[in-house]
Amino acid sequence: MRSNFAYDTDRLVQEDQTHILHPWGDLGEPASRNPMIIAEAEGVYVYNSDGHRMLDGIGGLWCVNIGYGREEMVQAIADQVRKLPYCSNFGITATPKSIEFGTRLAGYTPGDLKRVLFTTGGSTAVDSALRFVQFYFNSTGRPNKKHIITRNYAYHGSTYLSASVSGKPGDRGNLDFVTDTVHHLPVPDPYRRPEGMTEEEFCDLKVADLENKILELGPENVGCFIAEPLLASGGVIVPPAGYQKRTRDVCSKYHVLYISDEVVTGFGRLGEIFASEPVFEIVPDIITSAKGLTSGYIPLGAVFISERLYGEVSGEAARGKQFANGFTYSGHPVACAAGLKNLDIIESENILGHVRDLGNYFIESLSKLEELPIVGIVRGSHLVACVECVADKKTKEPVPASFDIGNRIGVHARARGLMVRPMGHLAVLSPPLIVTREQIDTIVEIMEQAINAAVDDLVREGLWNK
Amino acid sequence: MRSNFAYDTDRLVQEDQTHILHPWGDLGEPASRNPMIIAEAEGVYVYNSDGHRMLDGIGGLWCVNIGYGREEMVQAIADQVRKLPYCSNFGITATPKSIEFGTRLAGYTPGDLKRVLFTTGGSTAVDSALRFVQFYFNSTGRPNKKHIITRNYAYHGSTYLSASVSGKPGDRGNLDFVTDTVHHLPVPDPYRRPEGMTEEEFCDLKVADLENKILELGPENVGCFIAEPLLASGGVIVPPAGYQKRTRDVCSKYHVLYISDEVVTGFGRLGEIFASEPVFEIVPDIITSAKGLTSGYIPLGAVFISERLYGEVSGEAARGKQFANGFTYSGHPVACAAGLKNLDIIESENILGHVRDLGNYFIESLSKLEELPIVGIVRGSHLVACVECVADKKTKEPVPASFDIGNRIGVHARARGLMVRPMGHLAVLSPPLIVTREQIDTIVEIMEQAINAAVDDLVREGLWNK
Repeated sequence: MRSNFAYDTDRLVQEDQTHILHPWGDLGEPASRNPMIIAEAEGVYVYNSDGHRMLDGIGGLWCVNIGYGREEMVQAIADQVRKLPYCSNFGITATPKSIEFGTRLAGYTPGDLKRVLFTTGGSTAVDSALRFVQFYFNSTGRPNKKHIITRNYAYHGSTYLSASVSGKPGDRGNLDFVTDTVHHLPVPDPYRRPEGMTEEEFCDLKVADLENKILELGPENVGCFIAEPLLASGGVIVPPAGYQKRTRDVCSKYHVLYISDEVVTGFGRLGEIFASEPVFEIVPDIITSAKGLTSGYIPLGAVFISERLYGEVSGEAARGKQFANGFTYSGHPVACAAGLKNLDIIESENILGHVRDLGNYFIESLSKLEELPIVGIVRGSHLVACVECVADKKTKEPVPASFDIGNRIGVHARARGLMVRPMGHLAVLSPPLIVTREQIDTIVEIMEQAINAAVDDLVREGLWNK
Repeated sequence: MRSNFAYDTDRLVQEDQTHILHPWGDLGEPASRNPMIIAEAEGVYVYNSDGHRMLDGIGGLWCVNIGYGREEMVQAIADQVRKLPYCSNFGITATPKSIEFGTRLAGYTPGDLKRVLFTTGGSTAVDSALRFVQFYFNSTGRPNKKHIITRNYAYHGSTYLSASVSGKPGDRGNLDFVTDTVHHLPVPDPYRRPEGMTEEEFCDLKVADLENKILELGPENVGCFIAEPLLASGGVIVPPAGYQKRTRDVCSKYHVLYISDEVVTGFGRLGEIFASEPVFEIVPDIITSAKGLTSGYIPLGAVFISERLYGEVSGEAARGKQFANGFTYSGHPVACAAGLKNLDIIESENILGHVRDLGNYFIESLSKLEELPIVGIVRGSHLVACVECVADKKTKEPVPASFDIGNRIGVHARARGLMVRPMGHLAVLSPPLIVTREQIDTIVEIMEQAINAAVDDLVREGLWNK
C-alpha cells in the first residue's frame, strides 16, 4: 500500500466509462465495466490508483520482461527524445538507433533471418509478414500460393488480416474475417487428445493435420503456415514434443513458408532471445516479434526475414521496385533506443540464465495447484503458465462460461496482491522475468487462496459441490 | 553543420544495407539505396550523421508538429517511463494517462464523437475503424452493409485492410488487396478536371460519383465511405470547395457511415485540432488520428467514435459482449503522456493560431514556383503543400517517371539544406508547425533553386528543353 497517492479514482473511473472503448472490454452498462486503474509500478509490482500493491503476474501483457521502473531505460529514452524524437524509416531514411538495433537483433536470429522490417507492434508485424509472403510469391511467379494455414486457438493480432489468422473462438463474435484463403487446423493441445492415445501418437496426428491440409489445398496454392511455438493467448497450449520441428519439415517439403510468431515467446520468456531454434529446433523463414522487444516500454514490432527470400526479390533486377508496406513509426528511434537498452539489461543481468534456472521451479510449483478439485491442468514452459479450471477432471469438461471462474480468481488474487490474467475458465501467468524464487512462492500461494475463494463463491451460490 | 559529430556513417550505411528492409525502400542492389542517416534534430532542423543541417520541410513524416528537441516532452516522457512505462488497456485495465488523454481529446472532437479507442498508429486506427463498422452493422442486424467506398490516390495505411482502401497506384505492385468489398471512386482533383468544366460543376460530378456508387451497390450493402479531408500522400489533393460537406450529406442520406481520416490533417496541420468541422463543416461518424497526436515523439493512434453508434452496441443488452479488437500498446501510458504534453504545447504557444496566421503566406509564397516552366501547380492548405511537375503545362501531362524529377529535386534541396518529400513527379512539404515566416522564405528559395538545378540535370542529359 502506498499512502501518498493523490489520484482521484472516482473521477478517473467516471471519465473512463464516459470516453474509453477498451480492447476486449465489456460493452455492458458502465457499472459492469468498472476499470482497474494502474497508476504506478516498480520492479515486479504495480500499484492501483488507491495505492494497493500487486505482484504483476502477467508482466503487463506478457511484455514487461525486465520489470518496471528501470532508471537505465528512463535515461536511454530521455536521451533519445532529446536528441532525435522521430525520424521515418521510409525510402532511404534511417537513424543510427534503427540501424544499430536492427543489426544487433540480427545477431540473435536463427539461420539466415538477417533482414529486419520494423513495425508498430505484434499485429502489424504479423500483418506485414503475411503481406511479405504475398509479395514474395507474386514477385517470383507463384501468385497462386495465397492460402494461409493456421490453428484454432492461435492468436496473431488484431488487424483484419492478423485477426483472421487467429483462432480464438471467443474473438469471433460480430466481426468479419478473411475466410477464402485462411484455414484453421485443430489445436495441438495434448491435454485434450483422444483417450488412450499417447502424446507421440497425438503428435503424429497433428503433424498429419498440416500435411493433409497442404495436400488438400494443393502445395502450389499454399503460401505459408503461421504458428506460435506455444499458443499463448489461446491458453498457453504447449504442443506435443517434436511438433514444431516436424511441422517445419512438412512446410519445407512442400515449399510452404513457415512464420514463427515469437511475439510472446521471444526476449527471454522461454530463456532465449528467440526460442525457435534453441528451444524448438526450428529455423523458420520468418519470425515476428514485439512486446519483450522493448519490454513494452515504447511500442515497437519487428519482422525478421530470411536473406534467401529477400535475395529473390531484391538485387539488380529489382531496382526501383519497392515492398510498398510499412508504418510511420517503423524503426522509431526512441523505440529502438529502448530496445537496445532492454537488450543491454537482459545481457548484463543474465536474465536468460535466470529464466532457464527458475523456469522449471515456476512450472513445478504451480503444478501443485492440480491437486485442487477444480484445476484440470497447469501447463506452460519457463516463465509462462496457465491454470485451466474444469468441471470434471475425468471428462476435462471446462467450467461453464457462466460461472465466470477466471474473473472470480482474478478478483480474489488482486485483493491478495497478485495480478493474473483471467480468460474464461483459464488464468494465465507470465510475470516479469526478474521474478525471484520467493516471489514465485508468493504467486503460487496467492493462486491457491484465490482459486479456493472462487470455489467458495461458487459453492455459496449453489453452482459447485465441494 | 555540426562539427562535434561522432557517427561512423560508413559503418551505419553498410549495416543498413545489410540488415534493414525499409518501408517503400528501393529493393535494387545496395548501392542504389544508400541510406540518408538522420542523427539529431532541434526545432525545425534535422542533422544527418555527418552534421549537415537541413530544415525539415516534411515534419518527420507530417508528424513532428511541435518541432524537435522539446525539453518539456523529454521530461513528460521520462517522468511517465519512471512511474509506469507500460500497462495494457485490455478489458478493465486503465491508467490515469490513458483516461486523461482520452477525456481531453473528447473535448476537441466534433459532434458526439466522444468515444476513444487507442491504437498503435494511423494504419491500425483505420483498420480498427473499419472493423468497428463491421461490428456495428453485424451487431445491429445489417450484416449486408459490408461494402466500403474510398477513392483513388487515397492513403489510409499499410495493413492488408487499410492498404486495400488506399488507392495510390504506385503502391499496388505485387501485393494483394481486398477487392470484393472495396470500391474506389475517381480522385476529386480539381487540377485535372475536364477542360471547360468549372470547379463547381466538377464538384457536382465528384459528389455524384459517390451517390451513384452507393446506388449501384445498393445502400443496404454499403457500410461506409472513408476519406481524408485532403488526400495527403496522394499528392496533397484538395477536393473542390464544398465536396466534403456534400459527400457527408450523401452518406447521411443513405445511412452510410462517414470515416474522416485525419491522421495528417489533425493536430494543427490545418490550424485546428480536428479539421473536419471547423475547416470542412462536417461531423463525421468516426475520425481516425495518429502522427500529430503525439507529434510523432511516441507511437500512438486513435479512433473517435460517435456516441450514437457506440450506444447502439453497448448498454444493458450488451453485457458480456466485447469489441474483440485492440492492441498491446493501445492507450500506452508513455504515448498518452506524450500526447497530453503535446496538447499543452500546442495550446500554450497558440500553435493553431500561428498556423492560421501563416498558412496563407506558406501557400501563396510557394505558389510563385508555378512561374517555373516545369511546375504545373502548387496546391495545399495551411502548412501542407505539394509542387507538381508537368511535362506540358497545357496538357498537364506529368513529367515521366523515368525522369525521377521528384528525387532529383530532393537531392538538390537536401544539398542546400532542405528536406522535401519526393513522390514521383511531386515534391511534398509539411514543415513543423512552429516554422517562421523567415523559414518559409528559405523553403521557397531553396525549392526554386532545387527545381532549377533538377531541370538543369534533365537538360544536360538531353531529357528537357529549357
